[in-house]
Amino acid sequence: MQNLAEIEELIKLISKLPGLGPKSAKRIVLKLVNNRDELVKPLANTLAQIYKNVSRCNLCGSLKSNLYPCMNCENVKEKFSSICVVEDLADQWSIESSNIFKGYFHILGGTISSAGHRKEDLLIDSLVERVKKDNIKEVILATSATVEGQTTAYYIQNNLKNLEVKVTKLAQGLPVGGEIESLDDGTLYSAFKNRSDLKPSSE
Amino acid sequence: MQNLAEIEELIKLISKLPGLGPKSAKRIVLKLVNNRDELVKPLANTLAQIYKNVSRCNLCGSLKSNLYPCMNCENVKEKFSSICVVEDLADQWSIESSNIFKGYFHILGGTISSAGHRKEDLLIDSLVERVKKDNIKEVILATSATVEGQTTAYYIQNNLKNLEVKVTKLAQGLPVGGEIESLDDGTLYSAFKNRSDLKPSSE
Repeated sequence: MQNLAEIEELIKLISKLPGLGPKSAKRIVLKLVNNRDELVKPLANTLAQIYKNVSRCNLCGSLKSNLYPCMNCENVKEKFSSICVVEDLADQWSIESSNIFKGYFHILGGTISSAGHRKEDLLIDSLVERVKKDNIKEVILATSATVEGQTTAYYIQNNLKNLEVKVTKLAQGLPVGGEIESLDDGTLYSAFKNRSDLKPSSE
Repeated sequence: MQNLAEIEELIKLISKLPGLGPKSAKRIVLKLVNNRDELVKPLANTLAQIYKNVSRCNLCGSLKSNLYPCMNCENVKEKFSSICVVEDLADQWSIESSNIFKGYFHILGGTISSAGHRKEDLLIDSLVERVKKDNIKEVILATSATVEGQTTAYYIQNNLKNLEVKVTKLAQGLPVGGEIESLDDGTLYSAFKNRSDLKPSSE
């Protein structure tokens, strides 16, 4: 038997999602077609709504509903004095779930020189705008510890140097649980360079 | 920041799919929202089409397009004389991909006494109908080697006993690569009971 064209198409689309191959896609499709009203219908509706109503905010780079002001930058209940700059939404979600930072987020949408991203594609001008408008005291650059991430951080730092705002970036060093023998040279270098004094001289 | 309601809903729905939890669902949602035209739109359309146009065939239990006759039973190019009875579409896909059987498939839609399936819910009457109508010579019962699967096979066998048709079921024994020490008693029992004679007596 040949599969229905719609089913083949669905398997193909689901196989493109991260972590899924043709086999897991088939398993998912079987689950879907056995749960038409609980899964197929709401999924189709939700995806159609997202396609219609959700887009990237031009100011902060987060996802916003086209029906309301952006909940990430325009319509935030609390006022903050710091802003954390990340590469993409996944990074924001990680930092949020760690509960380590309370403040605004700014999503660049990539890094300089990573696949096809030019400086103009990243929301750097709007970051400068937000820093001025929201009276920000500190910009925390939380880009990846990769060449691209650090280049981007350096570029942003340059763009902010004429403003009266503190610019910091995340510390580099040993990750928690990191064994010295398994660390790369770059990490070891950072860890030595940024070593902390456990017995600060009292003089 | 609070996530958009649509995004939360999508994460919730995707988490319900087999093999996916909240974390992988988030990763998938990020991939989706970053590929609106390549993924969100076609997925929404395909799912909506499936919801509208694809349903279970009342005769053979497979998925059929509402626009055409069922490709699994009504509109099959070749004529076959055997029919393989399986519990669900996943089983049919497995057997098809093994290329071991060429003939019709009949999908029961579950087993007797498994969660909420009554005998009437399984397509057993329509199996009898197909056997008569298509002049079937052999019905191969390929239900699982579980209590429910075997009960169902026995029940079907009973329903077919007045027809002139051969009814067989899949052999039970050692799975390929199965080590004796790790097999359960039931499998060992079947393997002993169905042992084959390697040197048939010539008398």
